[in-house]
Amino acid sequence: MLSEFDIIDRYFTRPSPGAVLGVGDDAALIKPARGMELAVSTDMLVAGQHFFADADPRKLGHKSLAVNLSDMAAMGARPRWAILSLALPEPTVRTDEKWLEAFADGFFGLAQAHQVDLVGGDTTRGPLAISVTIIGEVATGKALRRSGARPGDDIWISGQLGDAALALAHVQRRMVLEPGEITGCLSALHTPTARVELGQRLIGLADSAIDISDGLLADLGHILKSSKVAAVINISEINCSAAMKRCLPRALALECLLAGGDDYELCFTVPRSRRKKIEMLSLEQRIPLTRIGEIDEGEGLVVLDAAGNTITLETKGYDHFHV
Amino acid sequence: MLSEFDIIDRYFTRPSPGAVLGVGDDAALIKPARGMELAVSTDMLVAGQHFFADADPRKLGHKSLAVNLSDMAAMGARPRWAILSLALPEPTVRTDEKWLEAFADGFFGLAQAHQVDLVGGDTTRGPLAISVTIIGEVATGKALRRSGARPGDDIWISGQLGDAALALAHVQRRMVLEPGEITGCLSALHTPTARVELGQRLIGLADSAIDISDGLLADLGHILKSSKVAAVINISEINCSAAMKRCLPRALALECLLAGGDDYELCFTVPRSRRKKIEMLSLEQRIPLTRIGEIDEGEGLVVLDAAGNTITLETKGYDHFHV
Repeated sequence: MLSEFDIIDRYFTRPSPGAVLGVGDDAALIKPARGMELAVSTDMLVAGQHFFADADPRKLGHKSLAVNLSDMAAMGARPRWAILSLALPEPTVRTDEKWLEAFADGFFGLAQAHQVDLVGGDTTRGPLAISVTIIGEVATGKALRRSGARPGDDIWISGQLGDAALALAHVQRRMVLEPGEITGCLSALHTPTARVELGQRLIGLADSAIDISDGLLADLGHILKSSKVAAVINISEINCSAAMKRCLPRALALECLLAGGDDYELCFTVPRSRRKKIEMLSLEQRIPLTRIGEIDEGEGLVVLDAAGNTITLETKGYDHFHV
Repeated sequence: MLSEFDIIDRYFTRPSPGAVLGVGDDAALIKPARGMELAVSTDMLVAGQHFFADADPRKLGHKSLAVNLSDMAAMGARPRWAILSLALPEPTVRTDEKWLEAFADGFFGLAQAHQVDLVGGDTTRGPLAISVTIIGEVATGKALRRSGARPGDDIWISGQLGDAALALAHVQRRMVLEPGEITGCLSALHTPTARVELGQRLIGLADSAIDISDGLLADLGHILKSSKVAAVINISEINCSAAMKRCLPRALALECLLAGGDDYELCFTVPRSRRKKIEMLSLEQRIPLTRIGEIDEGEGLVVLDAAGNTITLETKGYDHFHV
């Protein structure tokens, strides 16, 4: 059986050219470039809460890093270093080795694509849990915060919302997707794309940003609360897949769209005067960027349907304590 | 019932004067001082592996930070920022609130003593697990590494070894401590002291350092392997408590002393010419610092008893994968 040290040596020790000292000492050593601040964030994924215990380890490796990259994107930071803690159950049928190899493959595949170095971590036996901390660089004073939204700002989202939640509803048999819809939705759920490059390009353009991990309403709500402003959005403006369009306006689909979570798209606010610049950025980055509403003075979030009627929803976002 | 956001607001949001931006955005922002590198480390504590599920939450809060501070000490780094991820089971008899309040008390009590800011984290439902990442500062190029030991170096340890392991053996009924011995050993186990100040003072003096978390033999072994050197130590030189002295030379006590783990003392190597300086440092810091052996050329670790005979041990250190 593999020891803790074997596991680290064999699966999690790779060159870390961006670090002063990588895996293998009491701590890693990193040195930010001059004039840069560091953005630091963490996400913990627990079997049974965030994924099924028998989930594909390669996709899990990808996703555990992707959700953290998404936090860097939301700050406009360039992700550079990751730290990974892993609690692994006693091996049963499936051997540790196969699981670890696939997990590391998924993790490092995405890490290398973003030139992120894994510089440290911890492994232990325990119920399957993955905790990743990510550290990125952003020019001093330039980070995108939740607190910068101002009345008159347009509210934008990247990509399409709700597909991950649709996939989950399908897997849980609360909804039936058609064969042609399943692959796309499942890949939104299992191998999300963090908008890392887009986030960095929004610096100097956006007044505020957040990544949509708990659902649009909850996450936009965080911006409103931090910025002490109100907003109106129109759901007919929200970009979504053909699968979502087919499932709407059923209540469950609407909930997936607005409060499903696991989207990892960016929601950001930009002064109206910069609309053209955002449209250009969308073309250049080849990412759909859609205006869904506007920031107002006051407080609260009003959600309108295509006819301009106010929609009321029960759920306001994903909360890991109320599932 | 508390939501995830309530928990963060109520228990884990405190002023973070040392950070540019603390808890509450997609990431924290920190800025290292000029000329400093950052040391980054992480430790994950899982119920059933590292502590009992009904462990005192205040002590758990203390320990989950202390084990990370100890890694900073081993690098000679000044700990500055912490990130905390917490998986909490569904509340049963004990309410979340009480547990969280006590845990936060223990965590922040130690954090404030070291001027460490909690700048971020994550909370979720799941089997009880605590993952802390710590970031510290150290002057560029000055960090204490495992790889710097040189033949002729003295091998030193701080404090006393083995009491935490004795306490665990007592709790598990593998050993019976006397009433007067229990408190001291239990406090070594539950509320260890990280040698943070000592670590920083060893910069410029020690050639290498590690913290003893997996047991002296395993951790000194890491220094030897990284430094490509050998060593001889004499167990009669190892500083230990009266409780340990009474239990020795029983095999189980010897195992606690040499391979018990959870000591969080420092093991470091220093050129012989600096003996006086280390002795002065011991007086000044009021921490026992004891010479237990010497680094040699070659490879391997020889352990001698008081009579100068070689001791052979089965266990070589704590491994979370082989319990």
